[in-house]
Amino acid sequence: MSKGNPSPVVAFQGEHGAYSEVAAHQLFGSHIATLPCRQFSDIFSAVQAERADYGLVPVENSEAGTVSGSYALLLASPLFVVGEVELRVRHCLMAPRGQTLSDIRRAHSHPQALMQCEAFLRQHGIEPVAEYDTAGSAKQLAEKPVPHEAAIASALAAERYGLSLLAEGIETNPNNFTRFLAVGRTHAARAEASKTSIVFGTANQPGALYRALGCFASRGLNVTKLESSPSRRVPWEYFFYVDFEGHQDDVQSSAALEELRQSAAFLRVLGSYPAATTPRDSATPSAAAT
Amino acid sequence: MSKGNPSPVVAFQGEHGAYSEVAAHQLFGSHIATLPCRQFSDIFSAVQAERADYGLVPVENSEAGTVSGSYALLLASPLFVVGEVELRVRHCLMAPRGQTLSDIRRAHSHPQALMQCEAFLRQHGIEPVAEYDTAGSAKQLAEKPVPHEAAIASALAAERYGLSLLAEGIETNPNNFTRFLAVGRTHAARAEASKTSIVFGTANQPGALYRALGCFASRGLNVTKLESSPSRRVPWEYFFYVDFEGHQDDVQSSAALEELRQSAAFLRVLGSYPAATTPRDSATPSAAAT
Repeated sequence: MSKGNPSPVVAFQGEHGAYSEVAAHQLFGSHIATLPCRQFSDIFSAVQAERADYGLVPVENSEAGTVSGSYALLLASPLFVVGEVELRVRHCLMAPRGQTLSDIRRAHSHPQALMQCEAFLRQHGIEPVAEYDTAGSAKQLAEKPVPHEAAIASALAAERYGLSLLAEGIETNPNNFTRFLAVGRTHAARAEASKTSIVFGTANQPGALYRALGCFASRGLNVTKLESSPSRRVPWEYFFYVDFEGHQDDVQSSAALEELRQSAAFLRVLGSYPAATTPRDSATPSAAAT
Repeated sequence: MSKGNPSPVVAFQGEHGAYSEVAAHQLFGSHIATLPCRQFSDIFSAVQAERADYGLVPVENSEAGTVSGSYALLLASPLFVVGEVELRVRHCLMAPRGQTLSDIRRAHSHPQALMQCEAFLRQHGIEPVAEYDTAGSAKQLAEKPVPHEAAIASALAAERYGLSLLAEGIETNPNNFTRFLAVGRTHAARAEASKTSIVFGTANQPGALYRALGCFASRGLNVTKLESSPSRRVPWEYFFYVDFEGHQDDVQSSAALEELRQSAAFLRVLGSYPAATTPRDSATPSAAAT
């Protein structure tokens, strides 16, 4: 990332200790400053208004799928995609100090996290209680401790709010990853292995997408993500979100984009950025995506 | 749908009054019997064990994106896709009888619904309170009414639990649609306009997807949905979820599928079914997808 700025400010959605903040540390390092934002749109405003250097938005979760709202914001924003990171989501049970796992009767968290930990909660006879978010549940519990009550959030949230970790990695499916894109005001520095994210539109005609993909296939460019999204404002038109391996300034990539620009209804290059490395997870290496 | 069975039993996830149940009525009519299920996987079990004739699973929401978990279940199940329906999600504020909008101080619902109604809640000075689900919040409030408290759920939930509708269509973005697929034990009857849903895998090679789509493009078959999903168990392989216009038994479709079967790592035809008609919403016709 921006090597010129040793301590960038990174905006994320949620309270301190959110998984987005964990992902920000994974991508930018542990010495960044982080800026919690209430809504995804606030992340973009913070970066545009220079209150933050970068913003981190989730775009895809292996359980819940693509986060369409993030793509809509990317499309509407003048910011560039400058990086990507894949975070393994590891849920932890935490409580105010002095309690053990067997003391816990109720666990507070976001409904999605509670569902992902359902087997663990059932096994330990813990009743799930829905809250607004994961880190927020930890914060609330730290501020107003109640005996026999715990929260489910990231290990970072436990550290941040001074709660004891009673169990780690309690999600049923360890293959739970969220992919985030980082946005910034300027293009990312060129990396050895780059990826490029684009959005384009085609008419709803047989073969329109096929011809669009031909721009990449004929040049040996590898498409790593492709998703269609019907446009609800323009009848019968489609958006496509595409990632491919390569930098937009590469000879083959720029020729492919030029060809696509001529056939597509519109094309927006969101940015070229260093391709993410395999997520590291020293505790359970076998569960990491390889 | 199955015209031979005038009152089929349709399984859905959630409590009575859930948006999935509203979608079941939109697809199968108002005189069906509905079977609430705790988890998505329970829907598939209920249909397989013949406790239900059909099941309804959400696969795509215009705000939240593709529901990958549903596709994973479809892929693992021997059931067929027999129908699709697009539901316009209209959130309603409801409370026990005798209260008006100005009496309400807190509204209970799923965090996603609360966020989608944030502008309305702020405008009326109503504090959002997170709960497990939308219809469940309505049910709970009807069982234990508390003055000044309301729930956000479907109009069907208000009717079901005898709550008064204080406001309808309170979501900020009226273009909020969820697409559901219906599953059954036998193939759907052939319709005038059919769609077919398939899942296939390719190696992560430049052009593999392009060649796969060529099977459809070269025959003039229109792909209406395409989504890539990295397989986390098999490194560097990808799944693709594809919908196209046509029935799998059509001459062109079956030739395309045969060609795809020979080049793809695997292919599963989930089913052919009557294409959904435009969602009806008499209250706000302009917001309907056209």
